[in-house]
Amino acid sequence: MERIIFNEDHHAFRASAKEYCDRSLVPRMEQFLEEKTIDRAAWLEAGKQGFLGLDVPEEYGGSSVGDYRFNAVFAEEVSKVSASLSSCFGIHYDCSAPYLVDLGTEEQKQRWLPRFCSGELVAAIGMTEPSGGSDLAALKTTAKKTDGGWILNGSKTFITNGDMADLTITAARTDPAKGAKGITLFAVEAGMDGFARGRKLDKVGQTESGTSELFFEDVFVPDENVLGEVDRGFIHMMERLAQERVGAAVSNIAHATQILAETIEYVKQRKAFGQPVGSFQYNKFLVAELVTKAEVTQAYVDNAIVAHDEDRLSAVDAAKVKWWSAQVQNEILDACVQLHGGYGYMNEYRVARAWRDARVTKIWAGSNEIMKELIGRDLGL
Amino acid sequence: MERIIFNEDHHAFRASAKEYCDRSLVPRMEQFLEEKTIDRAAWLEAGKQGFLGLDVPEEYGGSSVGDYRFNAVFAEEVSKVSASLSSCFGIHYDCSAPYLVDLGTEEQKQRWLPRFCSGELVAAIGMTEPSGGSDLAALKTTAKKTDGGWILNGSKTFITNGDMADLTITAARTDPAKGAKGITLFAVEAGMDGFARGRKLDKVGQTESGTSELFFEDVFVPDENVLGEVDRGFIHMMERLAQERVGAAVSNIAHATQILAETIEYVKQRKAFGQPVGSFQYNKFLVAELVTKAEVTQAYVDNAIVAHDEDRLSAVDAAKVKWWSAQVQNEILDACVQLHGGYGYMNEYRVARAWRDARVTKIWAGSNEIMKELIGRDLGL
Amino acid sequence: MERIIFNEDHHAFRASAKEYCDRSLVPRMEQFLEEKTIDRAAWLEAGKQGFLGLDVPEEYGGSSVGDYRFNAVFAEEVSKVSASLSSCFGIHYDCSAPYLVDLGTEEQKQRWLPRFCSGELVAAIGMTEPSGGSDLAALKTTAKKTDGGWILNGSKTFITNGDMADLTITAARTDPAKGAKGITLFAVEAGMDGFARGRKLDKVGQTESGTSELFFEDVFVPDENVLGEVDRGFIHMMERLAQERVGAAVSNIAHATQILAETIEYVKQRKAFGQPVGSFQYNKFLVAELVTKAEVTQAYVDNAIVAHDEDRLSAVDAAKVKWWSAQVQNEILDACVQLHGGYGYMNEYRVARAWRDARVTKIWAGSNEIMKELIGRDLGL
Amino acid sequence: MERIIFNEDHHAFRASAKEYCDRSLVPRMEQFLEEKTIDRAAWLEAGKQGFLGLDVPEEYGGSSVGDYRFNAVFAEEVSKVSASLSSCFGIHYDCSAPYLVDLGTEEQKQRWLPRFCSGELVAAIGMTEPSGGSDLAALKTTAKKTDGGWILNGSKTFITNGDMADLTITAARTDPAKGAKGITLFAVEAGMDGFARGRKLDKVGQTESGTSELFFEDVFVPDENVLGEVDRGFIHMMERLAQERVGAAVSNIAHATQILAETIEYVKQRKAFGQPVGSFQYNKFLVAELVTKAEVTQAYVDNAIVAHDEDRLSAVDAAKVKWWSAQVQNEILDACVQLHGGYGYMNEYRVARAWRDARVTKIWAGSNEIMKELIGRDLGL
Ligand SMILES: Cc1cc2nc3c(=O)[nH]c(=O)nc-3n(C[C@H](O)[C@H](O)[C@H](O)COP(=O)(O)OP(=O)(O)OC[C@H]3O[C@@H](n4cnc5c(N)ncnc54)[C@H](O)[C@@H]3O)c2cc1C
Ligand SMILES: Cc1cc2nc3c(=O)[nH]c(=O)nc-3n(C[C@H](O)[C@H](O)[C@H](O)COP(=O)(O)OP(=O)(O)OC[C@H]3O[C@@H](n4cnc5c(N)ncnc54)[C@H](O)[C@@H]3O)c2cc1C
Ligand SMILES: Cc1cc2nc3c(=O)[nH]c(=O)nc-3n(C[C@H](O)[C@H](O)[C@H](O)COP(=O)(O)OP(=O)(O)OC[C@H]3O[C@@H](n4cnc5c(N)ncnc54)[C@H](O)[C@@H]3O)c2cc1C
Ligand SMILES: Cc1cc2nc3c(=O)[nH]c(=O)nc-3n(C[C@H](O)[C@H](O)[C@H](O)COP(=O)(O)OP(=O)(O)OC[C@H]3O[C@@H](n4cnc5c(N)ncnc54)[C@H](O)[C@@H]3O)c2cc1C
Repeated sequence: MERIIFNEDHHAFRASAKEYCDRSLVPRMEQFLEEKTIDRAAWLEAGKQGFLGLDVPEEYGGSSVGDYRFNAVFAEEVSKVSASLSSCFGIHYDCSAPYLVDLGTEEQKQRWLPRFCSGELVAAIGMTEPSGGSDLAALKTTAKKTDGGWILNGSKTFITNGDMADLTITAARTDPAKGAKGITLFAVEAGMDGFARGRKLDKVGQTESGTSELFFEDVFVPDENVLGEVDRGFIHMMERLAQERVGAAVSNIAHATQILAETIEYVKQRKAFGQPVGSFQYNKFLVAELVTKAEVTQAYVDNAIVAHDEDRLSAVDAAKVKWWSAQVQNEILDACVQLHGGYGYMNEYRVARAWRDARVTKIWAGSNEIMKELIGRDLGL
Repeated sequence: MERIIFNEDHHAFRASAKEYCDRSLVPRMEQFLEEKTIDRAAWLEAGKQGFLGLDVPEEYGGSSVGDYRFNAVFAEEVSKVSASLSSCFGIHYDCSAPYLVDLGTEEQKQRWLPRFCSGELVAAIGMTEPSGGSDLAALKTTAKKTDGGWILNGSKTFITNGDMADLTITAARTDPAKGAKGITLFAVEAGMDGFARGRKLDKVGQTESGTSELFFEDVFVPDENVLGEVDRGFIHMMERLAQERVGAAVSNIAHATQILAETIEYVKQRKAFGQPVGSFQYNKFLVAELVTKAEVTQAYVDNAIVAHDEDRLSAVDAAKVKWWSAQVQNEILDACVQLHGGYGYMNEYRVARAWRDARVTKIWAGSNEIMKELIGRDLGL
Repeated sequence: MERIIFNEDHHAFRASAKEYCDRSLVPRMEQFLEEKTIDRAAWLEAGKQGFLGLDVPEEYGGSSVGDYRFNAVFAEEVSKVSASLSSCFGIHYDCSAPYLVDLGTEEQKQRWLPRFCSGELVAAIGMTEPSGGSDLAALKTTAKKTDGGWILNGSKTFITNGDMADLTITAARTDPAKGAKGITLFAVEAGMDGFARGRKLDKVGQTESGTSELFFEDVFVPDENVLGEVDRGFIHMMERLAQERVGAAVSNIAHATQILAETIEYVKQRKAFGQPVGSFQYNKFLVAELVTKAEVTQAYVDNAIVAHDEDRLSAVDAAKVKWWSAQVQNEILDACVQLHGGYGYMNEYRVARAWRDARVTKIWAGSNEIMKELIGRDLGL
Repeated sequence: MERIIFNEDHHAFRASAKEYCDRSLVPRMEQFLEEKTIDRAAWLEAGKQGFLGLDVPEEYGGSSVGDYRFNAVFAEEVSKVSASLSSCFGIHYDCSAPYLVDLGTEEQKQRWLPRFCSGELVAAIGMTEPSGGSDLAALKTTAKKTDGGWILNGSKTFITNGDMADLTITAARTDPAKGAKGITLFAVEAGMDGFARGRKLDKVGQTESGTSELFFEDVFVPDENVLGEVDRGFIHMMERLAQERVGAAVSNIAHATQILAETIEYVKQRKAFGQPVGSFQYNKFLVAELVTKAEVTQAYVDNAIVAHDEDRLSAVDAAKVKWWSAQVQNEILDACVQLHGGYGYMNEYRVARAWRDARVTKIWAGSNEIMKELIGRDLGL
């Protein structure tokens, strides 16, 4: 069914986003895959076209469009090229921006946001630790107060953009006795003494994104780098998870829809037993199911985009749209691989990489299980 | 997620529909179940409150609201009481009305519509025959031209409202040589010579609706009872299937959502091993999944309602929303039965009847397989 | 794949069981459905042919074949006719017999078993209560010691054969303080003062079996009717659940396999669009999947039969075969209904009743959730 | 449930196979993954222990055990280490051996089999071509008769062991007019003029196996290298597919069962919210389901092993066990990834690679769709 949430401005913006993708991303994909990271040039070009400052006020270099549909459009266009690139950019302009904009002091905003918008400063978010990601409140990285700042010790893992981030929003325990109420956010900057990155993690998919471990050994973080209120980091994170999750959902379904469209082309061309493989009724019905599933999911995601834009999207509804879209994305991609036969198993086929890329969406940004826990709890169960 | 397609008028109308249900339907359910049909009084009361003429111009006794959301609201409220009653009313005000209004001559409209709106005249649609429902174009009931009318011979089966219908829109073959292009619609009226009803069919569910076989033995149907153009009956039907299917979808999801809500109450109350059965994590996650599925589906159905209201709903999109909603409804209800334990298997529990009622939605109004065929074909497969 | 667990003796026994079904059950099905119970004649005829005493030593009128395959064969043949009848007989010869034989005193065995084998005495098992079936240890029916016996108070529900049972193995709490260790089994006999049956429950399916509530109001049960050890009833039940569950599994898959075979015949005959509906590739693949699933499940059930016969079937393995077979049975039957189109929704079609009948197998004899709990616990989770 | 098809000899053989795996394979895994192939040493060591000649008569260096259970045991042990290695060895000792042994002339057997058994000569099977794998009969590689031999032209793709094979059983069209009846098998040997290998294909998984394209440009293959009868190659292949498929099934389930066992260990150790993640009921039930599914499938595979051993396994039953085991394997592994959280997405975790490895089993050796086609056809649909 036709989508109805976009107007002319969004369409024009989409054209520009697509143009960016075709120019800056598509031709460099091989390089990204090889180097297991996006290069700086692509960030700078995105910055130049204004994609990185959508949520940032104009005075700090952004465009502050104040319409979440634009965020969604950019995410969709990048996802069509690569779910992985979408996650890297998303962590920056969609997930990190609200932290810096809402929680940052005037001084911090002036210090970071212009370069954040231009793509000179790449952001990351460091919550997960080797000992656990689901139970965020149990994190072990500590920050001890000292003169003029804090001393951080501990480590993070699975951090998107972690290999290159100039600024990592890092959650650390500032009060061991207070559980979730003793966590604070710090902006850890590249080059700080005692801060080190592990190797780029070798992942099942999303090869073109740099995911790393981060190590903090007596890292001194000055008071000026505390983000938001001391001991309120957990709440700061909770409040921003809805945007992270609706953003994830936008990418999930855009990615699946794109690969599905390519698969439909494939099964129209590919022949077996003298007929297109897509014309065998089993495959035809399968594709009909997938197309329906994608559209149904898109309808829900679109509702979520609009609700989030109007500040009506609850954390629980964000959880719903996150897990569902991840589940559907994976179902669609698994079927798309199958429809490609042996070629679906070859990495040079986009569908093969897409399938590997998609697998993580049921795990990250709060695993699907954690989403169901939130929903169930909200129902009073 | 909050639904956003309704305004104050719809809410007011919903209150009125609910009031009707509570007054006219709920207290009579046992009787309907016993007699395997809705009684006339309920029809007349619905007529009096204006629910039966939503699609009928005011000059013929209707309200011609011209906003499909009202049709949807009525379907939803009735479905919450009984999917079966919703199907009986739906066949009348939602499926049959467009035939009479769009295809009827001025004389026909004056003859039938006022009583159609008041509930004095109950309508049915007779397409399916014992030899087949999916392949509509292969129907075998014949209509031979004679002086001043046509002679019908053949039979129909599985006809909703068939046990009581005063007027049955009946598809018959007027030109045996022309396949789908040789079918014409006739308004067969109760009491016509040679027209007989079989017994009420004993169904798996939907017990409170009268479903019957119809027999035509040399039934003379006057020319004045031809509906639409001779030999164009197939196209007339195809053009109206979208409304039938979106209407079915509206009921499907409203029904499932209601029973799910009741089930959530149940699993909060019912205890095992000292805790509410809904609080066991497996059940909690299951319910979280069901709620998500229901909401996702509702988003899509709502899009379809609006699209249909704006004349943008294609036959193919109607097929999508029909099969998907039927599938989800059945998945939800099966889980709801399970969550009730042994009580879910007892007919006095609403969930038990709901489960039986729902099973047919994957079969009727074009089986889910036929829907997938349409979608696949539309994709060029 | 060919089944390999049976030899000539089993084949001969199967022929005899089939002959019984064709003669005693098939012709009376309409009557059973009407009366919502099996009549006595069918019990007596089963007794005469020796089907009810398979687990009973010869000295008490049984055949004590000591080979569980025979139990399985009888269950399979009856299940092909009706899952419901199989459950009624199963509760008697397969589930109750071990209680009476293993736990009964010499006097009890002489008192009950001959009539048990002849079909004059029909047995039932009363564990579940209105307040809960899953948490057996929480049962509330009490038995207070008195002179020469016990006074029972409480009620049971969902009791198979409850409408007619001459002897109901009834679990009651003899020591309120000791939880699972304070439960005792009593043989409650028809006609005992204060013992009453509720109406036959109106079920979703399994219409031909009499399922009832049972009420105990100051029922005096003499000491001679205590089954097994006082306060060890829970363990007595646990030890016999494996046989109940493997027996359920045998019926589940036999029932599904039979209806599937009938459905395959149907889809070969039934035509749409000029070809058998089973020849459409989607349906063809679906049937291929169902046949595979049925065979895979049969292989596992057969392993369980042999293991149980050799006393190697653990309670946990019985749980696996129970839940899995129930799940598969329901999946198969749902698809079989769909393949029948509208006729699948008509009670006069066996597939329609079979679908309704099957639904309970995921709930009773320990719900599938309880089975998963047992399995998970056994894995150390 | 306990497996019952093995005796002491099989257990002893299993110990020896396991010892081989631990010594020759496990320590070299990193190397194999790096080099995208198994090295020769591992082949030779397998040969030395007699694993490669299980189906080869003793006179040609094999052990001709004549008991398929041994083939299964070796496949299982290797699969526990790596599904990919199992496929490489399987193509050799399990799939290729029957071609050489049954179809080979005395001279051919003496020429090839001793080195085949010792591991000096590695075999591959070349059926699939870039233009299609499912429709084997449509293959395009041609063999034109010439003096003393044949001239082959064309190409093959996705050939397991293709990167290193010394002998490739190659299907080519010898009579273009006769479709399936004009195909012949040739033993193409490494070093033949005009025979070339493409690069090792970059696959989604199974990284440690060398899969290649093969090119034939005017390759002269002497008459002495024709395998079996001219123009009967298609039938030769069909007759051997059952063994290939049951062999695939054996690996599929052994692989899944092993990773599942490792996952169970993981979820017992890994904690979140203060408890093992496997102890959350949702995960506990999930694991219970997976364990059941694995055991059910094993029962069926075991039946197939025995049936094949006794020459009773039909091509259709082999199709059933192939598709089902592949489906279950993939379901299990997807869940195992999820249970590992973020670590499940890291290639250094076995579960991550296992998940990628497994994906191909639904595609190769006849895709699951082709299996369902065969089964459906066999049912007369
Ligand atoms: C490619 C990639 C990129 C990532 N990027 C980032 C990033 O940029 N920043 C960041 O901070 N993190 C990032 N993550 C981490 C991610 O958010 C975590 O992996 C995720 O939250 C799960 O945590 P875990 O891996 O520790 O799994 P665990 O918490 O160990 O969970 C293991 C399993 O247990 C389940 N489980 C846990 N609790 C429950 C429960 N209560 N009930 C039922 N099941 C439960 C989980 O769902 C999972 O299946 C990334 C991860 C990946 C793989
Ligand atoms: C309770 C009830 C109420 C109904 N009310 C009405 C009514 O008011 N008016 C009316 O006209 N009809 C009514 N129907 C009929 C209904 O529309 C038909 O049952 C339905 O269209 C299916 O037709 P059939 O039963 O003949 O199945 P068949 O056409 O025989 O189909 C049998 C099976 O084959 C499948 N199949 C058919 N063609 C294909 C294909 N090309 N590819 C793959 N699979 C295929 C079907 O999906 C189905 O699973 C009602 C039915 C029921 C059960
Ligand atoms: C037709 C029929 C015949 C029967 N025959 C007999 C008979 O002959 N004798 C007899 O004694 N009983 C009989 N039963 C009863 C049957 O065994 C129970 O219905 C069954 O054990 C479930 O108990 P319940 O209905 O009280 O459900 P509840 O215990 O109330 O369970 C409700 C739901 O909660 C789930 N649940 C419960 N505990 C947990 C948990 N720990 N974790 C997750 N989920 C959980 C259940 O699986 C179920 O889905 C029969 C039932 C039926 C319907
Ligand atoms: C890692 C790997 C190793 C392999 N090893 C070997 C080897 O050693 N030797 C060898 O010869 N081959 C090998 N193969 C090839 C494998 O057997 C083929 O990939 C497989 O048979 C499918 O063929 P295809 O890739 O051409 O898919 P296609 O035939 O193009 O099929 C595409 C899709 O259409 C479906 N389809 C085809 N026909 C029908 C139909 N009638 N009805 C419904 N759906 C249909 C297929 O199931 C598939 O989903 C290997 C493949 C891989 C990936």
